[in-house]
Amino acid sequence: MLITLTTDFGSADHFVAVMKGVILSIAPRVTLVDITHEIEPYDVNQAAFVIAQAWRYFPRRTIHAIVIDPGVGTARRPILAEAGGQFFIAPDNGVLSMVYDSAGHKVRVISNARWMSKSVSRTFHGRDVFAPAAAHLARGVRPAEFGKTIHDYVRATLQPLRIAGDAYAGVILKVDRFGNLITNFHIDEFPDVRTRPIELRVGAQRIHRLALTFAGAAVGELFAIVGSSGYLEIAANQAPAAKLLGCGRGAPVELQFL
Amino acid sequence: MLITLTTDFGSADHFVAVMKGVILSIAPRVTLVDITHEIEPYDVNQAAFVIAQAWRYFPRRTIHAIVIDPGVGTARRPILAEAGGQFFIAPDNGVLSMVYDSAGHKVRVISNARWMSKSVSRTFHGRDVFAPAAAHLARGVRPAEFGKTIHDYVRATLQPLRIAGDAYAGVILKVDRFGNLITNFHIDEFPDVRTRPIELRVGAQRIHRLALTFAGAAVGELFAIVGSSGYLEIAANQAPAAKLLGCGRGAPVELQFL
Amino acid sequence: MLITLTTDFGSADHFVAVMKGVILSIAPRVTLVDITHEIEPYDVNQAAFVIAQAWRYFPRRTIHAIVIDPGVGTARRPILAEAGGQFFIAPDNGVLSMVYDSAGHKVRVISNARWMSKSVSRTFHGRDVFAPAAAHLARGVRPAEFGKTIHDYVRATLQPLRIAGDAYAGVILKVDRFGNLITNFHIDEFPDVRTRPIELRVGAQRIHRLALTFAGAAVGELFAIVGSSGYLEIAANQAPAAKLLGCGRGAPVELQFL
Repeated sequence: MLITLTTDFGSADHFVAVMKGVILSIAPRVTLVDITHEIEPYDVNQAAFVIAQAWRYFPRRTIHAIVIDPGVGTARRPILAEAGGQFFIAPDNGVLSMVYDSAGHKVRVISNARWMSKSVSRTFHGRDVFAPAAAHLARGVRPAEFGKTIHDYVRATLQPLRIAGDAYAGVILKVDRFGNLITNFHIDEFPDVRTRPIELRVGAQRIHRLALTFAGAAVGELFAIVGSSGYLEIAANQAPAAKLLGCGRGAPVELQFL
Repeated sequence: MLITLTTDFGSADHFVAVMKGVILSIAPRVTLVDITHEIEPYDVNQAAFVIAQAWRYFPRRTIHAIVIDPGVGTARRPILAEAGGQFFIAPDNGVLSMVYDSAGHKVRVISNARWMSKSVSRTFHGRDVFAPAAAHLARGVRPAEFGKTIHDYVRATLQPLRIAGDAYAGVILKVDRFGNLITNFHIDEFPDVRTRPIELRVGAQRIHRLALTFAGAAVGELFAIVGSSGYLEIAANQAPAAKLLGCGRGAPVELQFL
Repeated sequence: MLITLTTDFGSADHFVAVMKGVILSIAPRVTLVDITHEIEPYDVNQAAFVIAQAWRYFPRRTIHAIVIDPGVGTARRPILAEAGGQFFIAPDNGVLSMVYDSAGHKVRVISNARWMSKSVSRTFHGRDVFAPAAAHLARGVRPAEFGKTIHDYVRATLQPLRIAGDAYAGVILKVDRFGNLITNFHIDEFPDVRTRPIELRVGAQRIHRLALTFAGAAVGELFAIVGSSGYLEIAANQAPAAKLLGCGRGAPVELQFL
């Protein structure tokens, strides 16, 4: 069985290792894969994006544990979601919103203390709730044993809005390692960007060029490109677009068909 | 068998991968888990803290290789310690001090060249001594085959000192990812912090509030909290206390019962 | 089977996890090892150095996937190289040059679409070409099934040049975690550095001392040392030589026998 981990714990502390120790103590044969531990602290939306881009490439029945948990110790519920033949264990704070968007799903609250640590701290549910739940699920505990199905789970919308006939307001979901700005305009919902002239407005910049490859533009030139996840990205060849534009995550973007 | 790795090698160089290659060449079926490779270069005390927080969550007979080794190539000895049913392979420089504090233990010098690389460099014992020792131990070589039991191993004390009737001098052991300052006041030794009013002094700040959850305080407010490891931490809700205080690892902290 | 990954993808994005998901979907029993994902974006030479230092410590038949790919989506070819009993899957951009230098090798173009994703994007061949190729190879597909042997693969030279009778011009290949400057002078080609007096010139500094261990010098003192990879390094005891010298990767170094 495969368990993936996505957290905002970074890689310098003992937190991730503790979760792995807990998992391997319960389910020694599990294979662990790190999605990332470099989510900005408390940034639920960034984590929502990352897990939504990664999960579909994993085998059926993979268990994804996502621990971005600013509300740890409060009343927010731990949940177990099933979607697309895979499992997701996370706090109920919207971090699975983009998974819900992309696949039919069923969500349960994790309430059965039998699958948690004997004593549950108020500050580290990654260790005491989410890791044990993932490990027990991997060992064959059935989803229904964790708790009841719920329908009032938290779900945020991260979709663009139409602001005029042919103009849409979107947002930068993430800046990747290469400085590419990933927007929330997905090619499946905006297929016309491939065939109609567009203007993308971000910061003081207006971008008209839709490139097919990163290497296809002059070094340093800004352009739009449909990225590997299907989202429209603003990029520059071998240069960080984010720096050229002075823009980051959360910045507004407008898409206008001309 | 499980082998964990804790080093100050970072993740940008080939050092960690080389250790893994050496281990998997000797013991191909081992499962490797990274504790962290982001210990500050040469910071033995920080590593002592991190491994002490992580090890107890791993299964019995886990082998922990800890390579923070400013004295590599000098006369400092490589050691193999047994504690709490687990194994620890490290240079004898005090990095296991907090493990010794928490469990009965037996320490051996690693002197048998049979379980080292054929040629041992003067600069990379992670590759030539510690990785092979961990791998051979995982394959079933008995601890006694590595070398003799010793009693004069290096052991540092990282405990608070009483400085007056009800006042104690401690230190910041680590700043975690979230900017929380982890002190060396452990709840097991200072259980009264839960019931008596306290003052924590760090930098120019005096802190009186002991919170139960991170989310229980106003955003940005400083407070004390018993962290997930049992140590008193100075924290702020969704803000880095270390930045608010201008303090870091090694800073003195005073605990006064009022 | 073992597959290692070396990329410039960093650890904050979903890219590496996607590659792992693709590999584990095709070859669920593979063991994955990260060499590093912290290669500077697009820095083919740095990756060439890192993989060349790491590969020989892995078991026979290990598969190394190296994805530093500034030319993704252009005509540059994906290749599968065999060297020293191991396999290397990478774009044909010179990233394997130092592997070629160190072992007899055979290089094939990867052209058989059967071992790629059904639809190959123009921007993420790590996911669509390199990960599937590595996984299918691990499952037992024979190298010849991927494509034809080629001889015109890209190969850069990263060797020092003789500039006078006893003087050589070299370069800093990499600055490691500890701030040590790793030159391209290898002890196998310059064995005399152990026996003859030398002068190393880098920046404004002239270094004459060849130390045997890092701890053998005064704290902060600059010296040369034969590093664990066999390259001459410029180092300082418990201090980052790179900072002391104000020099980094790519800086020229001169070696003069006196």
